[in-house]
Amino acid sequence: MLDGAAIADGVLAKVVEEARALVSLGVTPGLAVVLVGDNPASRAYVAGKGRAAKACGFHSIQHTLPAETSESELLALVEALNAHPAVHGILVQLPLPKAIRSSRILEAIAPIKDVDGFHPINVGLLSIGDTGRAFIPCTPAGAMILIDKACERLGWSLPGAEAVIIGRSNIVGKPIAQLLLQRHCTVTIAHSRTRDLISVARRADVLVAAVGQPQMVRGDWVKPGAIVIDVGVNRVSGEALDASGKPKTRLVGDVAYVEAAGVAGAITPVPGGVGRMTIAMLMANTLLAARRATGL
Amino acid sequence: MLDGAAIADGVLAKVVEEARALVSLGVTPGLAVVLVGDNPASRAYVAGKGRAAKACGFHSIQHTLPAETSESELLALVEALNAHPAVHGILVQLPLPKAIRSSRILEAIAPIKDVDGFHPINVGLLSIGDTGRAFIPCTPAGAMILIDKACERLGWSLPGAEAVIIGRSNIVGKPIAQLLLQRHCTVTIAHSRTRDLISVARRADVLVAAVGQPQMVRGDWVKPGAIVIDVGVNRVSGEALDASGKPKTRLVGDVAYVEAAGVAGAITPVPGGVGRMTIAMLMANTLLAARRATGL
Repeated sequence: MLDGAAIADGVLAKVVEEARALVSLGVTPGLAVVLVGDNPASRAYVAGKGRAAKACGFHSIQHTLPAETSESELLALVEALNAHPAVHGILVQLPLPKAIRSSRILEAIAPIKDVDGFHPINVGLLSIGDTGRAFIPCTPAGAMILIDKACERLGWSLPGAEAVIIGRSNIVGKPIAQLLLQRHCTVTIAHSRTRDLISVARRADVLVAAVGQPQMVRGDWVKPGAIVIDVGVNRVSGEALDASGKPKTRLVGDVAYVEAAGVAGAITPVPGGVGRMTIAMLMANTLLAARRATGL
Repeated sequence: MLDGAAIADGVLAKVVEEARALVSLGVTPGLAVVLVGDNPASRAYVAGKGRAAKACGFHSIQHTLPAETSESELLALVEALNAHPAVHGILVQLPLPKAIRSSRILEAIAPIKDVDGFHPINVGLLSIGDTGRAFIPCTPAGAMILIDKACERLGWSLPGAEAVIIGRSNIVGKPIAQLLLQRHCTVTIAHSRTRDLISVARRADVLVAAVGQPQMVRGDWVKPGAIVIDVGVNRVSGEALDASGKPKTRLVGDVAYVEAAGVAGAITPVPGGVGRMTIAMLMANTLLAARRATGL
């Protein structure tokens, strides 16, 4: 099992140390998180990001706007944060209310403050391989660290390995494909339209599941000894009831963990796997943004 | 055999017709091509692009600068072309002399005039799937039209097909992968570090070779009935001698044509395949740029 929590803590410890060095030079990394509306999951994510930023010694700003906020009001806030010298990283929590076009907002964020890496220019720089300038999206960046840790433990070398990513989202599947390609894997992107998905998955030395389908990847989809990275976070109802008589819910990944763990060489759990890495990488990106902005 | 010349002529005929309609509304599509230095292959490409632009009824501008041109001089020209109202498309012929950083030049081109589609923001928009705003690089766009023609002839539907691209360049391999992914193929990107490349190639319903290795892809790399798209253009010496006693050279692709043609369901020749499409798609992109700039 790849312990995402422990590995994330290692990343965070390094961020804390490097942030301290920056602060001693007079620069406090600043992260602004913007939440629109009151989606409970989003609220929890944003709170977690704010806590992590404070724990890293960052300047943490949170803007919470009502669900009725207009696109132009949100754009005005983004512009203000772009111009704010104490803010090095800006994150607008997705999804946004339907009346607001996400693409307009994401493109309004100054690329050098785009710590989520969703601005088209950062997407393009990642694709071109200019990782010295791009911000790499947090979940894919975290997944790569877990893959590296797994390779280290298994004594593998990543170049030439067959990687299969199930899922082709802009925020996870596609950037992970780019990163694995840059690490010289043979990369296959599979998805809902893939024929014989099981056979395709079984080719993988590195299998990444990022589809949002609870426990879709079964044990017999996994090549014996493979590295399995589960990016899914799905809330499902169990059989047990809570105090009010409703079914208790729990989080499961896109991988049927127990089955797959019996076959895989290394596997991430849900929760406690990739999810823990995402926030750590957001902190690392914010530190990087502060460095790039100040040249330190 | 997929006759790139005939299919390209079809694209060009449509561009000519639509350009005429634009001209009648008072807008003549304008293409500026910039050549630095005197690489003979580049000179020939640039001349071909200028001829095609004129044949399409476009306003065609060519700037030829000496090899000693500095980066700042070239940047100044690009800025002037960005501001020039009669220029809708700008193409800076690659490769540039070593003293000039290509990335600096490509990023200086206004994204709405970037008919080559190499600006990081256009790369990003293509990756995100925002093809209503991206400019799609010409060779990948041309390859897709050939793939569509092949599917039409073979009675195939592209969604769910296994596509394998050999080569991961920013200008061909990666954008073709994005386009095939958007068309719902299962997409594998293979390259020099791929283990057992022959087996990977043999999986492909659609096999794209874009590596620049003369006749690397042999007949036994091709799945029977597959669509084979050869993007390679390699000049090789033959056994015959020319009038001055030197070996005559000829162009060959990345695919051993005769062998592969015996196995494939459809295949592009070199020359006369993808190469012919590239210029046609440049004209189509210039027309599109004129439309986007004027809103017509």
